[in-house]
Amino acid sequence: MKISIERSALLKAVSQAQSVVERRNTIPILANVLIEAEGETVSFRATDLDIEVVDKAVAQVERAGATTVSAVTLHEIVRKLPDGALVTLTDDSATGRLTVAAGRSNFSLATLPREDFPIMANAEYTSNFSAKAAELRRLFDKSKFAISTEETRYYLNGVYMHIADSEEGRVLRCVATDGHRLARIDSEMPADAADMPGVIVPRKTVGELRKLLDDDDMQIAVSVSETKVRFATPAITLTSKVIDGTFPDYTRVIPQGNTRKLEVDAAEFAKAVDRVATVSSERSRAVKLALDEDRLILSVNAPDSGAAEEELAVAYGDERLEIGFNAKYLLEIANQVDRENAVFMFNSSGDPTLMREGDDTSAVYVVMPMRV
Amino acid sequence: MKISIERSALLKAVSQAQSVVERRNTIPILANVLIEAEGETVSFRATDLDIEVVDKAVAQVERAGATTVSAVTLHEIVRKLPDGALVTLTDDSATGRLTVAAGRSNFSLATLPREDFPIMANAEYTSNFSAKAAELRRLFDKSKFAISTEETRYYLNGVYMHIADSEEGRVLRCVATDGHRLARIDSEMPADAADMPGVIVPRKTVGELRKLLDDDDMQIAVSVSETKVRFATPAITLTSKVIDGTFPDYTRVIPQGNTRKLEVDAAEFAKAVDRVATVSSERSRAVKLALDEDRLILSVNAPDSGAAEEELAVAYGDERLEIGFNAKYLLEIANQVDRENAVFMFNSSGDPTLMREGDDTSAVYVVMPMRV
Repeated sequence: MKISIERSALLKAVSQAQSVVERRNTIPILANVLIEAEGETVSFRATDLDIEVVDKAVAQVERAGATTVSAVTLHEIVRKLPDGALVTLTDDSATGRLTVAAGRSNFSLATLPREDFPIMANAEYTSNFSAKAAELRRLFDKSKFAISTEETRYYLNGVYMHIADSEEGRVLRCVATDGHRLARIDSEMPADAADMPGVIVPRKTVGELRKLLDDDDMQIAVSVSETKVRFATPAITLTSKVIDGTFPDYTRVIPQGNTRKLEVDAAEFAKAVDRVATVSSERSRAVKLALDEDRLILSVNAPDSGAAEEELAVAYGDERLEIGFNAKYLLEIANQVDRENAVFMFNSSGDPTLMREGDDTSAVYVVMPMRV
Repeated sequence: MKISIERSALLKAVSQAQSVVERRNTIPILANVLIEAEGETVSFRATDLDIEVVDKAVAQVERAGATTVSAVTLHEIVRKLPDGALVTLTDDSATGRLTVAAGRSNFSLATLPREDFPIMANAEYTSNFSAKAAELRRLFDKSKFAISTEETRYYLNGVYMHIADSEEGRVLRCVATDGHRLARIDSEMPADAADMPGVIVPRKTVGELRKLLDDDDMQIAVSVSETKVRFATPAITLTSKVIDGTFPDYTRVIPQGNTRKLEVDAAEFAKAVDRVATVSSERSRAVKLALDEDRLILSVNAPDSGAAEEELAVAYGDERLEIGFNAKYLLEIANQVDRENAVFMFNSSGDPTLMREGDDTSAVYVVMPMRV
């Protein structure tokens, strides 16, 4: 194999690959990126056995071929090369080394045989559709904060992507929850997605997927089977196993009958919660919301360190209510609000509370109260 | 005590105080900042028993007095208050609480009695002089990288500041070394500094001092005794114990007879060292310099992962020389060079190497070679 490629194109392709590679590896080949050159393209493939990413870049291929080298080392080298450099990668099968040359720099890296590199088996995808990058970004960005980190509840360690019925008709929906809070985000159902099986997309995959979604208007090709999901742009293909488990029936958790409505400026609210939480002890972090006619008093009482109170002008017309929440959870859902106002729907101080953005029902959050 | 103070002035004063406070403390009062209000100023004092910092700020003092509260909590609160807010601090001795009020925010913090706060004893300073912030910044910034982190060699855990004789006459000099590399930085001797006793300024003090030195033209009042050193601006006074030990005779370490001169673009050199070091294993990180007529070849050979080589055009007129260095040490001294060219003076591959910036002898670095 011998190829020449512009440094920035190489850096982009290798960056994505090395981020999939796990830093601590007992299987040496999994630390490597598989470089395959043919025709006018070179592909960079990396995997952790659960996720596989393939980046394609245009290169001048002088001699087709393939080899594998350390993804992290190659990335570090390319990152440190001067901008605009032309990089030549030459594989010498006799010495088992890959030469990386640019200007007066010359690197020789240990390789492992391409045959040892585990290629993820092709799945029979039962559903193939296309979605806008901006839509997918919204679905995952707004739900991922609620993913559980409890390994014993492995079926909550991802975002549940599925087709659901909503008031607006059938939608592509992402749901995540850790039992304390829940996010349910809807997007218009793409054509051809109606038969998509529901899948739990693992946390790491959600993180890697994010890098494909920066360009608002990019169309992402999505393929889904019972066991795998694939997201592809013309240059990058991200394939991932999905979590083998059943996502709980989240619809039972979303309160339907909450009638006490609070409307508050989301940014002001988040800042106030952050301030009063300063005095709370790390462990409890409970914030009390006391609601009265168009008035909200946020307070924290931490006997050891002190107390804090802050008043906000809000829209609230129901009877007096006091309810406590974990400050971190309140902050996280308040930070999801893109438009000005957050709308909270309460029932009693012991019941789950619903939050949405203005009158928009396509993004709904639920947070459990805590005793204060 | 009752004072009103502008949020930004309060934030600045409390920032410096909280950075001196050690995060893990077994003595509760050491987590606190002592706030003293009198006349038209309020002072904020914090200590870790080795370093004491006092910040003075102008405030509207309605009722003089003093109390102590958690430095970190107060800092967090003030940081989160909106810019431009007027903050009122009110001490209620009956409840033992300090109220922090700004706009509709209200905090009540636990206090500890001012009497329990350990005030650092005043020293008899044998030497008092004034130095420009820019000069002190240069002395410490360019030497501190060489401070040893080995706790057993406690006398190397700081920068040795003293008066010395140089080719240019008597100078204020800072030296730091960890046995592998050494930095010796000279500055014009300030008037009245001639009798200053040499002191080892601890690493943490060097870090805190740095915050006083941002304004180039600020005159810093320096006071030195055998046991303490004090740096003061009109607003901030930083007092520190010095390390109780004898700094080794560093002059023996600085080679006098090195004659093989290499002149190289410092930035190009640093980048090349950084690149070739990419392939080296974390443990050794050895870079080989091979010098020949106006040519420098940097190389690294790491049997496991690979090899790297890079050629630089340099000015070198002496006989062939091969010498190895720790890549990290080479990078660190190359990064100290402010002007274009770094000048290396070699003897043999087993002898310490000297580096300076062009023909300037006011900043000299020594680095020990390693076998490659």
